[in-house]
Amino acid sequence: MLDLIAPLVVPGETKIVLLSLDGLGGLARPETGRSELETARLPNLSRLAARSACGLIRHVAPGITPGSGPGHLGLFGYDPLQYQVGRGVLEALGIEFDLRGGDVAARGNFCTVDGEGLITDRRAGRISTEVCVRLTERLGTIRLPGVEVLVEPVKEHRFVLVLRGAGLGGRLSETDPQALGQPPLPVRALDAPSERTAALVNQFVAEAKRLLHDAAPANMVLLRGFDLLPKLPRFPTVFGLRAAAIAAYPMYRGLAKLVGMDVLSTGTTFKDEIATLHEQWPNYDFFFVHYKDTDKAGEDGDFDAKVAALERFDALLPEVEALRPDVVVVTGDHATPAILAAHGWQPVPVLVHGRYSGADGLDTFSERACRTGSLGTIPAFHLMPLVMANALRLTKYGA
Amino acid sequence: MLDLIAPLVVPGETKIVLLSLDGLGGLARPETGRSELETARLPNLSRLAARSACGLIRHVAPGITPGSGPGHLGLFGYDPLQYQVGRGVLEALGIEFDLRGGDVAARGNFCTVDGEGLITDRRAGRISTEVCVRLTERLGTIRLPGVEVLVEPVKEHRFVLVLRGAGLGGRLSETDPQALGQPPLPVRALDAPSERTAALVNQFVAEAKRLLHDAAPANMVLLRGFDLLPKLPRFPTVFGLRAAAIAAYPMYRGLAKLVGMDVLSTGTTFKDEIATLHEQWPNYDFFFVHYKDTDKAGEDGDFDAKVAALERFDALLPEVEALRPDVVVVTGDHATPAILAAHGWQPVPVLVHGRYSGADGLDTFSERACRTGSLGTIPAFHLMPLVMANALRLTKYGA
Repeated sequence: MLDLIAPLVVPGETKIVLLSLDGLGGLARPETGRSELETARLPNLSRLAARSACGLIRHVAPGITPGSGPGHLGLFGYDPLQYQVGRGVLEALGIEFDLRGGDVAARGNFCTVDGEGLITDRRAGRISTEVCVRLTERLGTIRLPGVEVLVEPVKEHRFVLVLRGAGLGGRLSETDPQALGQPPLPVRALDAPSERTAALVNQFVAEAKRLLHDAAPANMVLLRGFDLLPKLPRFPTVFGLRAAAIAAYPMYRGLAKLVGMDVLSTGTTFKDEIATLHEQWPNYDFFFVHYKDTDKAGEDGDFDAKVAALERFDALLPEVEALRPDVVVVTGDHATPAILAAHGWQPVPVLVHGRYSGADGLDTFSERACRTGSLGTIPAFHLMPLVMANALRLTKYGA
Repeated sequence: MLDLIAPLVVPGETKIVLLSLDGLGGLARPETGRSELETARLPNLSRLAARSACGLIRHVAPGITPGSGPGHLGLFGYDPLQYQVGRGVLEALGIEFDLRGGDVAARGNFCTVDGEGLITDRRAGRISTEVCVRLTERLGTIRLPGVEVLVEPVKEHRFVLVLRGAGLGGRLSETDPQALGQPPLPVRALDAPSERTAALVNQFVAEAKRLLHDAAPANMVLLRGFDLLPKLPRFPTVFGLRAAAIAAYPMYRGLAKLVGMDVLSTGTTFKDEIATLHEQWPNYDFFFVHYKDTDKAGEDGDFDAKVAALERFDALLPEVEALRPDVVVVTGDHATPAILAAHGWQPVPVLVHGRYSGADGLDTFSERACRTGSLGTIPAFHLMPLVMANALRLTKYGA
């Protein structure tokens, strides 16, 4: 799809806002038969939906619950089955680590081993973040032949290990045996290109053991979720857009950075994000604006809090519309139904509004109403081509 | 898809009419909320839609606006992403040039160069077509080793260059620098199989310069849109149909010819085309009938003219039905919404009527109504298999 789009992109003056409500989609509360979107009072969203093309998007495949990585890649136009971003990379993005194509990242834990090297605590008694910072500095002194070694603290016992250099492979087994009373496992390469990397990681683990021998309870490390950062096509290049991300949470800033968007400084609330949107309006063609509260309430299983989060979003929507963007998209990166209290596999409502979008005339913006919309149920990565077309930024295919 | 279909084709006596309304799909006029199809009085089409299976077809991919080439290839059953027809080939088809598989075609302009060979007018002052004809005759005397050189006038300063011979490549850079005060660029091969072709084209340009030295303002040529004619499977062979095209405009005759249909002589109006359909009714199993007026009005941004064009079509539809075809299809090669005044990316309404099509009972034939039809929203190249099935011309797959 990206190969099809890129040669068709034409310059333009139009502006696009993609509003991503994290965990937007929901499910009906059994007592009322109405979902979060159907329960909330959303006058602005309903009015906008009536004047938009609506539908449902599916981020990965039927029945598959997307993590934040695949969910956002889909929204950004990348087929998440083609461009995979794994756990180690996501851990690094979550601390806004500046990953580069070809980097191998892993999630690290400090752990406790006894005199025989057997694990007695897989989380090293959840040491303080302060201790974690000090010990990762120690690990950062490790030198390996031909690669750069980067060790960054995350929180408590968690850290990120990144190896940077040419010719690394990311298909590696984990060192965590997931059980006590056993030694950490050596890393094995799961494919030929990862063999040298496996040897380097085992050398890192041996050095770490030596450097941490006096640091009990954090006297050893466990590594898992190894991942090679895929070389992703750059979003601004593919779509010919000056693209900015406005997100209060580091994970989403990281995902936007991964595809080459400019990540704008902003505050900690959605109101701050909207203020940033207004300030930066002249400087970009495309804004990805992330709203976290819906997901948080959904994950907590708090139906009423999710309804309230939707209503807070709705109250601020006119401030986005006041900028008169040429195309507005409202959707999410996955469902987080409050009754599930977790990410869900359900397709997520979407609306696309613009001069040429057509108006489906739906009276609410909800899972049920959007099923009858003109966009149908489509893969999330089909959204960006549609948005580009609506912004008159694609020329025709074939003469 | 073609590989799946061809072995399943069985002989039959059934007759199929594919009515293609160029640029059929539209968008609602903001003042009324109704599209061209929803505004026009279309009693015959509405009556037929009620007794048909309806849906929407997408010619290329979501958000992608089809040119006439990909739009028609889709209708003819070819996936336009697999079978690509480029600009040079389309220019040749537009004058009904008899292109053959392996030919390389380019769009040519006569231009003006000064004493130092720098371009002073990229269109040679738009010389008359008469002068163009005379000068292309001159260029037609050029001989190149191992290939046939064919030069055909188009209109004013435009001509078509075709090289015919074995082993040619079509991946060539353009000679037009798209700016004044510069010399024409030499052609470069963009892949290895095109290297010999690049050398031949550069030799052609050198000869052309010599032959045109006294022909100012048309004293040089610019070439662009080089293309190798893809070897397309022949429509009559794949589908086992005696297939005829009835189209008043040369481009659409050319596209039908490209897939091996017989192109019938006809007049300049849709009424003439219908008369031709009646005359030739006994001689073919499949008729592609092209209606241009809808697209022309849409391109002009004239909503009312497009409504009128639809009503004129509707008035003649009973003359097609009077022939009692076994399967009638009404659709288009792309949308041309009048409010967009250009080809659009929107999916296009389609109806398939026959004894076994089922009847969706829709009360209008429109973008909105067809969304709810039994065919769903499908790729255009899925249409021909459906039509063949409805004509009882496909046996089952697997015993």
